[in-house]
Amino acid sequence: MATRAVVLLSGGMDSATCLALARLDGCECHALSFDYGQRHRAELDAAQRIALTLGAVEHRTLTIGLGDFGGSALTDQQIAVPTVAGSGIPITYVPARNTVFLAFALGLAEVLDADRIYAGMNAIDYSGYPDCRPAYLEAFQRLADLATRRGVEGRPIVVHTPLLLMSKADIVRTGLGVGVDFGATVSCYQATEAGEACGNCDACRLRRAGFAAAGVADPTRYR
Amino acid sequence: MATRAVVLLSGGMDSATCLALARLDGCECHALSFDYGQRHRAELDAAQRIALTLGAVEHRTLTIGLGDFGGSALTDQQIAVPTVAGSGIPITYVPARNTVFLAFALGLAEVLDADRIYAGMNAIDYSGYPDCRPAYLEAFQRLADLATRRGVEGRPIVVHTPLLLMSKADIVRTGLGVGVDFGATVSCYQATEAGEACGNCDACRLRRAGFAAAGVADPTRYR
Repeated sequence: MATRAVVLLSGGMDSATCLALARLDGCECHALSFDYGQRHRAELDAAQRIALTLGAVEHRTLTIGLGDFGGSALTDQQIAVPTVAGSGIPITYVPARNTVFLAFALGLAEVLDADRIYAGMNAIDYSGYPDCRPAYLEAFQRLADLATRRGVEGRPIVVHTPLLLMSKADIVRTGLGVGVDFGATVSCYQATEAGEACGNCDACRLRRAGFAAAGVADPTRYR
Repeated sequence: MATRAVVLLSGGMDSATCLALARLDGCECHALSFDYGQRHRAELDAAQRIALTLGAVEHRTLTIGLGDFGGSALTDQQIAVPTVAGSGIPITYVPARNTVFLAFALGLAEVLDADRIYAGMNAIDYSGYPDCRPAYLEAFQRLADLATRRGVEGRPIVVHTPLLLMSKADIVRTGLGVGVDFGATVSCYQATEAGEACGNCDACRLRRAGFAAAGVADPTRYR
């Protein structure tokens, strides 16, 4: 029987690559996305298409009120998305977002009796969010081992983050090698509803630089 | 300025006592409840009344789709709530529930720039859920330190669990001493919409035994 996995899928290039790698690992993949009040739905539409084309057995989109808390340019339309790089943790950081996402993934994994969670966090060419760092993910694994029935029974649910130490160019090359259609992914923080990217936000800059460094034509549709 | 705190409030006796203790600590309390697909809304109605009477500055109820995952008698009407005590982790365990709740509390605390989270977990007279144990809570604190902007800045959000090592009788005595109206709290897993308890589920048994051990009349309304 195939190893069962819950795969966090945002609709961006990292999580799409992560799903393709989970499939390559032979996993039966249950994709999980969140409508958390982000600025646009284009990435959720993208996630649905990606789940289908990359062979997930199901795709769930959970609506959660995280955006109601505010405090981030990604969930508060009153806060502008920066278009020049700053220093420190940027205003696009959504407080505790990855902790919330991983917590739900853990719950779903336990209900499905899945052995693994796949998540596309990356700590090299990233925006400096604290909840993408290796030490954070190690701490989550420890928490997961203690939180769950499976952990208590000595069959822990293991969090896999295969992109954690890849550069964005590595992700581009890896994704292309495992059949990811990057043209179908949406990374932009303020994409149009049709999925066209602004080209200026942090996510767009990292993505564009990744394709350039990999020497691959950028398939992103800019508005 | 008062210390700001996010207080997880279920509507049961433990979290009500926890809120009262947070107020006694001088905190400005922001109460947070979840509509996660539990079997009845009576505990959410109770939470709202308790937040008001115990002086929280606000009370939020967040709707989250955790119950959609199923896998627990508390969220799946097809699974009966046991009325006799079993061994091991019971079927009322909701996978990753406390991790999800604490993750949202962490996000709200960071948005509010709150110093503390209060949570009413108890590991003495409890149902044997893995995510109520001291080691679990220590692991969550470590995660919180690594997950957040405040943690990175050396001003961690601290999780307080003042009931963790109290017996149920201790909680009864403590709560009465700090003005908790236990008659307004709802512990029963399958209360009626009016908040009347079944008297037979695990939560009812633990509660009833607590009042008996404390030598206090049980104010619970049984159906």
